[in-house]
Amino acid sequence: MNRKEFRDLASPDEAREAIDSLSLEGGIERVSLEEARGRVLVARLDAELDVPGFDRANMDGYALRARDTFGADEADPARLELVGAVHAGAEPAVALESGEAAEISTGAVMPDGADAMVPVERTDTDGDEVLIRTSVAPGDNVMFAGADVAAGERALGPGTTITPRDIGLLSALGIDEVPVRAKPRVGIVSTGDELVRPGEEVHSDRGEIYDVNSYTIAAGVEDAGGEPVLYPHAGDDQDEMERILREAAEECDLVLSSGSTSASAVDVIYRVIEEQGQLLLHGVSVKPGKPMLIGRLDDSAYVGLPGYPVSAMMVFRAFVAPAVRRAAGLSEPAAATVSGRLARQERYEGGRHRLMPVGLVGSGPSETARNGGGESAEESGDGETLVYPVDKGSGATTSLAHADGVVEVGPETDYLEAGESVTATLFSPDVRPPTLFGVGEDDPTVSRLLDGLENPRYLSVGTRPGLRRLRDGVPDVAVAAGPLERDVEVTELGRWDREWGLVVRAGNPDEIEGLADLVDRDLRFVNRTTDSGLRSSLGGAVAAFADERGTTRHEIVDAIDGFDLGLRAHESPARKVIAGDADAGLGLRETAERLDLGFVPLGEQPVRVLANPDRTEKEGVRELERALEGVSPQ
Amino acid sequence: MNRKEFRDLASPDEAREAIDSLSLEGGIERVSLEEARGRVLVARLDAELDVPGFDRANMDGYALRARDTFGADEADPARLELVGAVHAGAEPAVALESGEAAEISTGAVMPDGADAMVPVERTDTDGDEVLIRTSVAPGDNVMFAGADVAAGERALGPGTTITPRDIGLLSALGIDEVPVRAKPRVGIVSTGDELVRPGEEVHSDRGEIYDVNSYTIAAGVEDAGGEPVLYPHAGDDQDEMERILREAAEECDLVLSSGSTSASAVDVIYRVIEEQGQLLLHGVSVKPGKPMLIGRLDDSAYVGLPGYPVSAMMVFRAFVAPAVRRAAGLSEPAAATVSGRLARQERYEGGRHRLMPVGLVGSGPSETARNGGGESAEESGDGETLVYPVDKGSGATTSLAHADGVVEVGPETDYLEAGESVTATLFSPDVRPPTLFGVGEDDPTVSRLLDGLENPRYLSVGTRPGLRRLRDGVPDVAVAAGPLERDVEVTELGRWDREWGLVVRAGNPDEIEGLADLVDRDLRFVNRTTDSGLRSSLGGAVAAFADERGTTRHEIVDAIDGFDLGLRAHESPARKVIAGDADAGLGLRETAERLDLGFVPLGEQPVRVLANPDRTEKEGVRELERALEGVSPQ
Repeated sequence: MNRKEFRDLASPDEAREAIDSLSLEGGIERVSLEEARGRVLVARLDAELDVPGFDRANMDGYALRARDTFGADEADPARLELVGAVHAGAEPAVALESGEAAEISTGAVMPDGADAMVPVERTDTDGDEVLIRTSVAPGDNVMFAGADVAAGERALGPGTTITPRDIGLLSALGIDEVPVRAKPRVGIVSTGDELVRPGEEVHSDRGEIYDVNSYTIAAGVEDAGGEPVLYPHAGDDQDEMERILREAAEECDLVLSSGSTSASAVDVIYRVIEEQGQLLLHGVSVKPGKPMLIGRLDDSAYVGLPGYPVSAMMVFRAFVAPAVRRAAGLSEPAAATVSGRLARQERYEGGRHRLMPVGLVGSGPSETARNGGGESAEESGDGETLVYPVDKGSGATTSLAHADGVVEVGPETDYLEAGESVTATLFSPDVRPPTLFGVGEDDPTVSRLLDGLENPRYLSVGTRPGLRRLRDGVPDVAVAAGPLERDVEVTELGRWDREWGLVVRAGNPDEIEGLADLVDRDLRFVNRTTDSGLRSSLGGAVAAFADERGTTRHEIVDAIDGFDLGLRAHESPARKVIAGDADAGLGLRETAERLDLGFVPLGEQPVRVLANPDRTEKEGVRELERALEGVSPQ
Repeated sequence: MNRKEFRDLASPDEAREAIDSLSLEGGIERVSLEEARGRVLVARLDAELDVPGFDRANMDGYALRARDTFGADEADPARLELVGAVHAGAEPAVALESGEAAEISTGAVMPDGADAMVPVERTDTDGDEVLIRTSVAPGDNVMFAGADVAAGERALGPGTTITPRDIGLLSALGIDEVPVRAKPRVGIVSTGDELVRPGEEVHSDRGEIYDVNSYTIAAGVEDAGGEPVLYPHAGDDQDEMERILREAAEECDLVLSSGSTSASAVDVIYRVIEEQGQLLLHGVSVKPGKPMLIGRLDDSAYVGLPGYPVSAMMVFRAFVAPAVRRAAGLSEPAAATVSGRLARQERYEGGRHRLMPVGLVGSGPSETARNGGGESAEESGDGETLVYPVDKGSGATTSLAHADGVVEVGPETDYLEAGESVTATLFSPDVRPPTLFGVGEDDPTVSRLLDGLENPRYLSVGTRPGLRRLRDGVPDVAVAAGPLERDVEVTELGRWDREWGLVVRAGNPDEIEGLADLVDRDLRFVNRTTDSGLRSSLGGAVAAFADERGTTRHEIVDAIDGFDLGLRAHESPARKVIAGDADAGLGLRETAERLDLGFVPLGEQPVRVLANPDRTEKEGVRELERALEGVSPQ
């Protein structure tokens, strides 16, 4: 068995067949009517009684014999003797003879001898008599016993996913408990010494990270109609991992492992499968997802997911979720698809089937074209959709939160041209592509602005990459901080100024007053990356300071300890100061104040919100423009 | 205030505005990550840490300084001294100098001094040295701290409905609890002495029926993202009803009442609203749904739904569910719509806006055309969809279980022609119109056959109405029992015989042997309606028996006590025998045996499955035909 290299990769279809060959079904359980919504019936339910169970008056009025009304009308009413009254929920105490009528209320039992009723609006009373001002036929305004559902009738078939409407039918039949498919229990075992559960403290210095897969996959299992069971972290302790795997296999219909990519973890999994199961397939020719395992562990099905969260989720969605849904008896949700143009060329290597997470952006004033979820392509007008790959690299945990769906690319395709027409399958029919897609500088004012918009997406890539992407035509807007390097063809929607400088310890105990302190004293500084508009403004300040001192920019930069330590995030330098790893960091006054730190101002810089000139009429852009009216340029 | 007649009806738009003016929001609550799926975030969540929190190796291999690899290739590797190893989840114990490398595993912290890494596949070891057979640039195969999510970055905005992908982002940030909108609590108060909860015994003789609205509306509230609270039945006791209404108003964001249409219940509701609330609107110009009330009860919103289950659910869907969804922070689900031809003419009166529940049936071999739910209209080919109103009369509780969606018709429309193009909004995007639509005789063999089909709908309307509907062109197939009255242009898909006769008490204590006993002795008989094929066969037997006796059919029929007592359901006569209300009932041997009753055979009758000749190629019809091959004509 070739453990680590997966030389003979199975095709995606072979992987699906392997999973299909496993049994994930969870058996049968009985649930109360209140818990039946969305569950799947395992047996036919026949009506065991008539609904209604009696001949029932449809309105308030008078029960009578139809033949007594023949010929009656407004002008010449039939005159009947009033002999009693029947109310809903009561047994009739009267039986009618010819020439008699009984008052009856909606839903009440028709008394013996009556075969029709007349609504109160078509009658008058006159002492002990009632005047019937219309004629009716036998059965008029009466619902006969069994007319709604008849005893013995097939009510709901096996395989029915129970809707509120079906619950209406079940209630009418008096059924308060139904046999449904048990949700397949899916055990989730995550391994790896470096994983920490959310809510606990993470020690980045020793490479700890939060466990992303467990909770994400658990939510995916629920989405697919399964019941997730999270097992405690196994770490990389082999005995412990083996114990947990065996426990999960005993308790669940399917065991998913993910997390550690360490050789020892993989070894344990292989060993346990060899001893107590069967490995059907290892390695699938799909990207992401190559290192997938499919097999059996005791009586449980087993799938080993890749360790990287994006890969794990893509593989789960493509291969595991459909099997869980099938086991749960749910039909595959109708996939909602969106067609659009690919925003940039994509090259592929290795001849593997690709599952490419993508974001969507409408390129015009109209709605995004979509099939599924109700808007037809015809309604969408000419606002073409751009489809852009969302990829932060293989270690990324969060790319999918910024994606809308998946484009699948066959192994025979080496590259896709920019502008090529592609079809994306939305992650679910509920997915709403963003109303506004922005990129650029991270800025607190921008964050607040976005909070007021309908459904914005914003990627904090920094000023320079933001402007580059805006020029490439993908986002609707870019936010740029600091001096603009050169003219770009954009429409400025709004601007304001922000104060930047050095974020220092609370109270500024080092008495830092400006750049001179960083250059002349033994202070540790933390910078931002060159992508950041703050870094550009700092560059300007350094150049001015060098002029002032009559030296070169290079000399100054070399003298600042940490000038090359560029962090991507606008808060990260401040957090280094809090952690005691630095004495000063490049940052904003607003950040310093929010984190209760000291601040040494170095200047102000403009923040500009710039739109793609072709998209200024797009509704999301106009919404942003209106929101910007509330931001005063300081 | 005009209480019962609703003379000044509000328009549907006015009703929506009235509901919109009420506040149904349920406040804020904090839920754990495991319970966050599908909930709606109330505040922006910013990243409070970098993800990853350190510069991280993307693969197994060697950490090094990129400049040490410049110029290296397969033939001329760079030779670096191996000075240590770093594993995932451990703090590096080494720092690299120029010319040095450290073994590093995927996910481990890059050691100080290293700025890139080379995957193990491009290296060899040679004693204490490692041979690097490729050159890399600074940053290659490394994910820098914050590259995935940067501290301070806007992670998720307010109003986000949390998906599994968002849970991935939240986990990565270590967030284990999120502030979400509380689900609006919706109290459901059902009133009426005649209502019995499912699971309890219903007394039909005093007009009791099962409470359909409570459970159906509760399921609808859940579907809309609310939390239903069922209150105990109030009956028609005014004090009790008032107490429950006030309790519900205190505990819930919205109170819905439904059920009793009795004047006293309505009086209590009016009084409580007058004393402690405000009535905004009573009576809406919509059918069904006229008697709707909208107002306030203390601090709670209040909507009074019509008593009839179908009306209650239609009004709930049209007016209340959208408000609950809005209060829950959920966006309106994209409505899936289906266009088709109306199967029969529909006339309207009264100038009210109509909400018409409809069923859908594909009239050709292809799939039903639909927008929404993924199949585009283009894929649907020429299989036109027929749209037929589903209506069992105003007292019906179960019509909606046999409907797929709603056609709305404006008040200005007096009638719709058969064949007119209409658009139905599916009850939900998940709704799958049936693969086969059958009507006709109720028969146990038919029920079993249907169990094996993909998604059948069958209405047990009896043989005669079934054939009539088949001729009118709506259903795909009709099931006819007994002699066929005349030739109809149909395709027979299959047939079998069934034994019919008299269902009698177990052991046949009355020693009934045939029709003669019913005619000559004092026995109570229960018949089926003339819609039933069984009734036709009985008619034939009665005629033959009259011939035998040399008398008229009329004489025989008059001599049988209960011959005119026709019940709709095939099991109902048998159930009358069980209940002691009859000595013999018309029925099937199979029914008698299943219910452990005695049986007196009177004959055999053919059961035929007949298809619309234009639909024999439809997949659902072919599936039925294949299933029929397993049914041997006895």
